[in-house]
Amino acid sequence: MTAALGYAAPAAKTPLGPFRFERRAPGPHDVRIEIAYCGVCHSDLHQVRDEWGHGLFPMVPGHEIVGRVVEVGAHVQGFKVGDLAGVGCMVDACRTCPACTEGLEQYCENGFTGTYNALERDGKTPTYGGYSNHIVVDESFTLHISPKLDLAATAPLLCAGITTYSPLRHWKVGPGQKVGVVGLGGLGHMAVKFAHAFGAHVVLFTTSPGKAEDARRLGAREVVVSKDKAQMKAHVKSFDFILDTVSAPHDINAYLALLKRDGEMALVGVPDTPPTLQFQHLIFSRRKLGGSLIGGIRETQEMLDFCAEHGIVSDIELIPIAKINEAYERMLKSDVKYRFVIDNATLGA
Amino acid sequence: MTAALGYAAPAAKTPLGPFRFERRAPGPHDVRIEIAYCGVCHSDLHQVRDEWGHGLFPMVPGHEIVGRVVEVGAHVQGFKVGDLAGVGCMVDACRTCPACTEGLEQYCENGFTGTYNALERDGKTPTYGGYSNHIVVDESFTLHISPKLDLAATAPLLCAGITTYSPLRHWKVGPGQKVGVVGLGGLGHMAVKFAHAFGAHVVLFTTSPGKAEDARRLGAREVVVSKDKAQMKAHVKSFDFILDTVSAPHDINAYLALLKRDGEMALVGVPDTPPTLQFQHLIFSRRKLGGSLIGGIRETQEMLDFCAEHGIVSDIELIPIAKINEAYERMLKSDVKYRFVIDNATLGA
Repeated sequence: MTAALGYAAPAAKTPLGPFRFERRAPGPHDVRIEIAYCGVCHSDLHQVRDEWGHGLFPMVPGHEIVGRVVEVGAHVQGFKVGDLAGVGCMVDACRTCPACTEGLEQYCENGFTGTYNALERDGKTPTYGGYSNHIVVDESFTLHISPKLDLAATAPLLCAGITTYSPLRHWKVGPGQKVGVVGLGGLGHMAVKFAHAFGAHVVLFTTSPGKAEDARRLGAREVVVSKDKAQMKAHVKSFDFILDTVSAPHDINAYLALLKRDGEMALVGVPDTPPTLQFQHLIFSRRKLGGSLIGGIRETQEMLDFCAEHGIVSDIELIPIAKINEAYERMLKSDVKYRFVIDNATLGA
Repeated sequence: MTAALGYAAPAAKTPLGPFRFERRAPGPHDVRIEIAYCGVCHSDLHQVRDEWGHGLFPMVPGHEIVGRVVEVGAHVQGFKVGDLAGVGCMVDACRTCPACTEGLEQYCENGFTGTYNALERDGKTPTYGGYSNHIVVDESFTLHISPKLDLAATAPLLCAGITTYSPLRHWKVGPGQKVGVVGLGGLGHMAVKFAHAFGAHVVLFTTSPGKAEDARRLGAREVVVSKDKAQMKAHVKSFDFILDTVSAPHDINAYLALLKRDGEMALVGVPDTPPTLQFQHLIFSRRKLGGSLIGGIRETQEMLDFCAEHGIVSDIELIPIAKINEAYERMLKSDVKYRFVIDNATLGA
């Protein structure tokens, strides 16, 4: 075992503070990564507050991890000491079910192993995330990161990036299409960048008129203030695809009405209270509503390579670990453009 | 003009009774059909009770029309006097929008002309449906019916048939698939027949255990009583596709959970109150929920030809027109196997 230092929530709804724990020594297929940066995902907040239940405490959050390989197991083939590496939401899966075999570990039929707040495949060892100085992960769940990218700004690609890239690819977003993105937060701002990079005409929906300029800078061709009924009406039946990144309660029917016949909308956020669905929006124009969960390891690598090629990273605000509790409060007010990233060097030793 | 005799609701929520009115003389592209039988659709009941609003009274319902051509306009090419013919939910559409051009008149961007309770393209002449002795329709919206089929039992194909055939085709239901049908009414019993004919392993969901034997006779390989949680649980994540034909309020989430990863469910009925949708059922297995409305004229003909080839018709109960009000009451109690069809000869002269 090797000593690790992190920041943990000792129990549900308690502030995070320093926490010393142990990680396994790297096995033959493991790499050990010294963590340089870790993005702060909204789901970190949900989980440390145990809002989804079944929380394992003390909890070290963080699944947007980037750093440098400092040790490799005897049989590791894809990484060597000194390589840049990343870890996202998963550190393992059953690897044998149809989903895993197809490279869709996020839909593992036996449940993937979360990077934190989960148990390893042994069913008893808790996983601890990226708010820590190092992590030990099987190379099969470790990603390569190009030195061309700004490393800190790359961290959010491991969750916010792949969560939006995957549905945009699955629904084949591309040139000639009018594509909506609902919400301009950590996920939404990545969705705008990707959909624009894929060649679509991107329209951002936001409740905040003040975000219009930023949205255009990120790649949106149009911005619609969703509370303005006249603006919404002007786009009725005009979208090929809409990606809804909002997890706060909101009216999905208003967006379904904006899809063309045979248009589709995908959800990536789960609201606390289930919204109502007016079936006629689906029936009278043969529309579809779907959902998507992060992305598989293979696709995450593809996304990172795409980002390196096109110079895409997240817009971030770098914080020292000591500011994490304050950052959570600001996230609740959407007061971040557009992702907090922890500078893990500030953890000390 | 030619004199017509039908049964009409004089006003909303009043019983239907005899009604004399006029239809246009056949124009150059019209056929006049002597109506032999007309199916009774649940939407007839909604509309004569004005439950969807904007009802035009007096209202002659009926959009599952079959009969024989008795007169053709000068330029009619596809029909001759004596041919069997059918008319479904539409008697016209704009014919120029992309949907019409693609043969999807049911999604006409300018609104199709309903067979009854609608206005002709002139915006002022009311349309009257099939609870009448004859109808005048443009040949472009008239269907050919094979003499091989039992004519009375063919009538419901014009709405219940195409409404289920179209989504089963659109979602490419076929051999090797496990396909669910929710509800065994007018629509559901046709969906079971079609999905079985397409080679799928069909599972019927019903709230009535008493329908199991009938469902098997119609083509279902398995029957699940949807109120029985253990029976439902046994089918979790096992369906490729589910067609939900129920318009009464019900829990769609319970069915979404039964779809495989990437499985899809289609809705064809609109409940009065919009149900809640738990997004996680879509997100965690990348499922999709869609809707479908009747079918285009070209596909309706394809469906009728398929039925002629495979000997598929509706299971019906033939009634004289005088029993129509009583039939409505029985429909409300689902007391019909599985479609009432009016014998239009009973209208008299």
